[in-house]
Amino acid sequence: MLKVSQNYPKNIATSNQVFRQEIDFKNITKAPTYALFQKLGLISSSSSGIINWLPLGLRILKKVENVIHKRMTEIGCDEVALTSLSSKELWQKTGRWENNELFKLTDLKKADYCLAATCEEEISEIVKSNLDSYKDLPLLLYQITRKYRDELRPRAGLLRSREFVMKDAYSFHLDQTDAKMCFDLFNQAYYKIFNDLKVPFVSALADSGEIGGDLSLEWHYPNENGEDTLFECSHCKKISNIEKQASLPNDKSNEASEASEASEASEVSKASETSEASVRYYLTEDNNTLIAAYYPKERKLMSSFIKKEIPEINLKLKDQSEILKLFKENTDEENNGFIKNVIRVMDVRINPSTILPDFPSEIKFQRNSFTTLNDFSIVEAKEKEICGDCEKGVISSFKSIEVGHTFYLGTRYSKPMSLKVKSTDGKQDIYLEMGCYGIGVSRLMAAIAEVSRDDSGLCWPSIIAPYHLSLIVIPQFSNERTAGKVDQLIKECSENGIEVFNGNTNTNDYSLKKRINETMSLGIPLFIVIGGKFLDKNMIEIEVRPSKFRDYKTNSSHDSELEINKLYRDPNNKRNWNWEFRKAIKNARATYNETHVVNRKGFIPVVKALLKDL
Amino acid sequence: MLKVSQNYPKNIATSNQVFRQEIDFKNITKAPTYALFQKLGLISSSSSGIINWLPLGLRILKKVENVIHKRMTEIGCDEVALTSLSSKELWQKTGRWENNELFKLTDLKKADYCLAATCEEEISEIVKSNLDSYKDLPLLLYQITRKYRDELRPRAGLLRSREFVMKDAYSFHLDQTDAKMCFDLFNQAYYKIFNDLKVPFVSALADSGEIGGDLSLEWHYPNENGEDTLFECSHCKKISNIEKQASLPNDKSNEASEASEASEASEVSKASETSEASVRYYLTEDNNTLIAAYYPKERKLMSSFIKKEIPEINLKLKDQSEILKLFKENTDEENNGFIKNVIRVMDVRINPSTILPDFPSEIKFQRNSFTTLNDFSIVEAKEKEICGDCEKGVISSFKSIEVGHTFYLGTRYSKPMSLKVKSTDGKQDIYLEMGCYGIGVSRLMAAIAEVSRDDSGLCWPSIIAPYHLSLIVIPQFSNERTAGKVDQLIKECSENGIEVFNGNTNTNDYSLKKRINETMSLGIPLFIVIGGKFLDKNMIEIEVRPSKFRDYKTNSSHDSELEINKLYRDPNNKRNWNWEFRKAIKNARATYNETHVVNRKGFIPVVKALLKDL
Repeated sequence: MLKVSQNYPKNIATSNQVFRQEIDFKNITKAPTYALFQKLGLISSSSSGIINWLPLGLRILKKVENVIHKRMTEIGCDEVALTSLSSKELWQKTGRWENNELFKLTDLKKADYCLAATCEEEISEIVKSNLDSYKDLPLLLYQITRKYRDELRPRAGLLRSREFVMKDAYSFHLDQTDAKMCFDLFNQAYYKIFNDLKVPFVSALADSGEIGGDLSLEWHYPNENGEDTLFECSHCKKISNIEKQASLPNDKSNEASEASEASEASEVSKASETSEASVRYYLTEDNNTLIAAYYPKERKLMSSFIKKEIPEINLKLKDQSEILKLFKENTDEENNGFIKNVIRVMDVRINPSTILPDFPSEIKFQRNSFTTLNDFSIVEAKEKEICGDCEKGVISSFKSIEVGHTFYLGTRYSKPMSLKVKSTDGKQDIYLEMGCYGIGVSRLMAAIAEVSRDDSGLCWPSIIAPYHLSLIVIPQFSNERTAGKVDQLIKECSENGIEVFNGNTNTNDYSLKKRINETMSLGIPLFIVIGGKFLDKNMIEIEVRPSKFRDYKTNSSHDSELEINKLYRDPNNKRNWNWEFRKAIKNARATYNETHVVNRKGFIPVVKALLKDL
Repeated sequence: MLKVSQNYPKNIATSNQVFRQEIDFKNITKAPTYALFQKLGLISSSSSGIINWLPLGLRILKKVENVIHKRMTEIGCDEVALTSLSSKELWQKTGRWENNELFKLTDLKKADYCLAATCEEEISEIVKSNLDSYKDLPLLLYQITRKYRDELRPRAGLLRSREFVMKDAYSFHLDQTDAKMCFDLFNQAYYKIFNDLKVPFVSALADSGEIGGDLSLEWHYPNENGEDTLFECSHCKKISNIEKQASLPNDKSNEASEASEASEASEVSKASETSEASVRYYLTEDNNTLIAAYYPKERKLMSSFIKKEIPEINLKLKDQSEILKLFKENTDEENNGFIKNVIRVMDVRINPSTILPDFPSEIKFQRNSFTTLNDFSIVEAKEKEICGDCEKGVISSFKSIEVGHTFYLGTRYSKPMSLKVKSTDGKQDIYLEMGCYGIGVSRLMAAIAEVSRDDSGLCWPSIIAPYHLSLIVIPQFSNERTAGKVDQLIKECSENGIEVFNGNTNTNDYSLKKRINETMSLGIPLFIVIGGKFLDKNMIEIEVRPSKFRDYKTNSSHDSELEINKLYRDPNNKRNWNWEFRKAIKNARATYNETHVVNRKGFIPVVKALLKDL
């Protein structure tokens, strides 16, 4: 039935070549990572914050996804794929519809939808309509799909885009104990995922927002270009997000900071001398109690820290005059115009000599309505303060890129979504205990690039590298005999799961130098140069692309010895493969720190061992 | 750093079990396929035409995707993943923005987007910004992503949903010859894809719409519940979509259709006796020529058939009085109120005795302005007419489900998108020759289910079955010793790439009968029942789920002999494996037509052979 097209051109252009732009290798460090992604043909950004994935970038993204798939499957989490069109009714139930960052649209039948930014509502609805009894629990589900957030200020590239790929998992349990253990289970899986990726990471305690409790953990790559700030305590070693880090003033630090110490520290000491305070008012949920929070003028107040001490506080109400008005109206009637309760919360940094702002004149009060709480720390932590947690160590901050977040949700979503089952004795309805666990997958890929890039360009861990090995033929050896031997080599690699990058063998206008620069800039972990040594003597020189995390990888892996060293320790291998193991050599072509020269028999095993390490 | 949760429950509920509803196996044929998908826990539909993929359905979908990935890679087509948010500007360039079926939305910065329904604009824009010269061609790209179409009347399930998974490929060439060969190349890949899926399919010539030419092919599954109508010619064997099928009246059929023949045929014959015609007016693009198309009143006029003969015809203008008004205005001025040209197109079924409607009185005309074309067939084909193509055979129609469409686009999109390169001699700009090639992936999955389902439920070809083999333990043998042997069996299967469905071994309230019904309804191709025979004698009974396409598969495969027969022909296998090959046996448990009883040594090879065949 079908015509056979024998004349159709055999050499289809490799799209990698088409999408790769001319790169100034000498100044490659000057290009921001997102620009490098575009120049190298990984992605193409159509408008601000919107990404098109090109073949090379998609290969990497899919490999990152596979690392996650594996670890999710391992803990019994099943994969789903929920719609991107989530209906208004669901989001109204949880009070999340009124969010400016949701992309909203209306269909032909005038029904309203948002493009899913996250799927707590949708997944709860599905589980609700399928759950028969507590016997169906625990239930762990995840998906890797596109999510949407209409950020007013999206960043170029993948770090903060408006359409992004996210892994979001959800857990459903009958009781808190299991749900909290499941939170640990997911964090263990995350630990394995980040270990698989072989880039130094930390997990940090995070603010759990409205839900309360301590079960919120963020996963970060420390990096000076990161947008987040984390603190680490010198004593208890806990790492916390700045939103979570409690701190106490460090008097010693102030004394010590006379001469060479940072100006920031001396500012702190100055502040406690001049002593002027700011105040911010809150109401409790019942509007009956006014909370006046006093804190050093030059510091940033953290409402969430007050909430920890006074859980009844209403953080949603923000307008100060509105708060005072509401409180006045509420108390006037019952109390002859006098207020009921005022709680004054004084940051621990406020001292008796601090000048406090006047209490608002429109509020009449009786002296005995005041309670004063003195010892709380309610401002954002600063470098060199004392850890508010162990009260022993000194905290220091560093910048980082957040790539994952795990969350114990409790009944925050199951209650408004009416997601419940009968208890085991059948006597009562139990709202499910939920957890949610996110990884920004496209963001993760960008973060790895940001953190691991070097003077030569990108540098991927082999588990997510677009290809494992670059095969570069020296132009003067490019002939039919070479092609035959090269094809054989590629076939052998393919049979062994080694992915060969051979994108531009058809073009002769590519110099050897340029092709080595290219494989380095693409971050392909290994490359070989095909020339006389291979063609005449059957010896292959495997060059390892340097990586700044090689040492980290050795330290963090469970088995501390590198695979390649294990292999090299066997004298039979050295002899049979004529194996020459060179380290830290520089030559005119490029800078690299590790080369393995082996015969054909040693080629596959050595490449395999290197890929396990890299 | 991380706590280890040793007390966490080991038996996580399998989501398959949670999402599967109670099924009435006796009346399973009465459930529409989309309802079966929901009951079996493959998908969950949130609102009309919007789908959530549950674990079991997603497994199948991903396998369908893999079949496609393989064949796309084979022809050098590289994978991309374009944004779902496509900007208004692009769609305005090609005149496709004003389309009611596009979901449209506005972002915070008041920019307009649609949810991509297809990606000709987006991909052209990307190629345009990356293409340096003709040396970058040909370029073949594809993606498998979600697409959106706001259908007013979506159908339940996956056949016509508003959010669906589509494979869309695009090709870019410098000249027509290569572009047309590429069209063949894609059709060959499609042929292989549908062969891989082992369900009877046809490809049909289709209307290429505005673009013209014959290069448009649809891929269908013949099925009585399908929405499409195809015709096949008894002589030239060409299969065409009803929109493409040209036909000629069949006088013999009329003569023969006196007594028992279909009433439809006698209607045709009656019509040609009473002879009354309808007319429809068109203008040419320059508004200078009026085309009056006359056709039998009871037939459906096909404008596209007229366009084939008169390419200058303007099919966009539809309002009849508007056409006459425009024509009059245009000709009045230059021609003293007399019209210039009228072409009367008479359907071949019009005869001299046919009563023609009057020519509109508002148009003054001179006799010599008329041209009459007599021999065209311009109405939709009917059963038993003569094939308009070979003019020899009789055509007959059948219903089908369309699942793919390939299209040679020419410069339809490259021109408005300014997608061009310098010619090889550098002297002129050449607009790229494009093609596009679609497969509705989620639709394909639904169509396969629709076409292959039987009295027992769904029946998947093994290449896309959610699991390969169901493992069913007879309740009274469920103990620790059995569990040990079963685990060993599962491990061996897993090492050999055989996916075992073992979803409900933990529940004891599942009867043997129910579990067999279940594996049959899920369409898993093989199952084994673990009982005394296996536990005591190490013999395994492999039962093959019947499939109505078993014969088709044998006929269509390149190698016509079944793998299982090849294996059985070797007397060593029969002897070593104690192999008993039973066919067409019925018993009380279920109806099946093929069973293989083998010892442990024969288990894996026999299962592997069966999976290749099924």
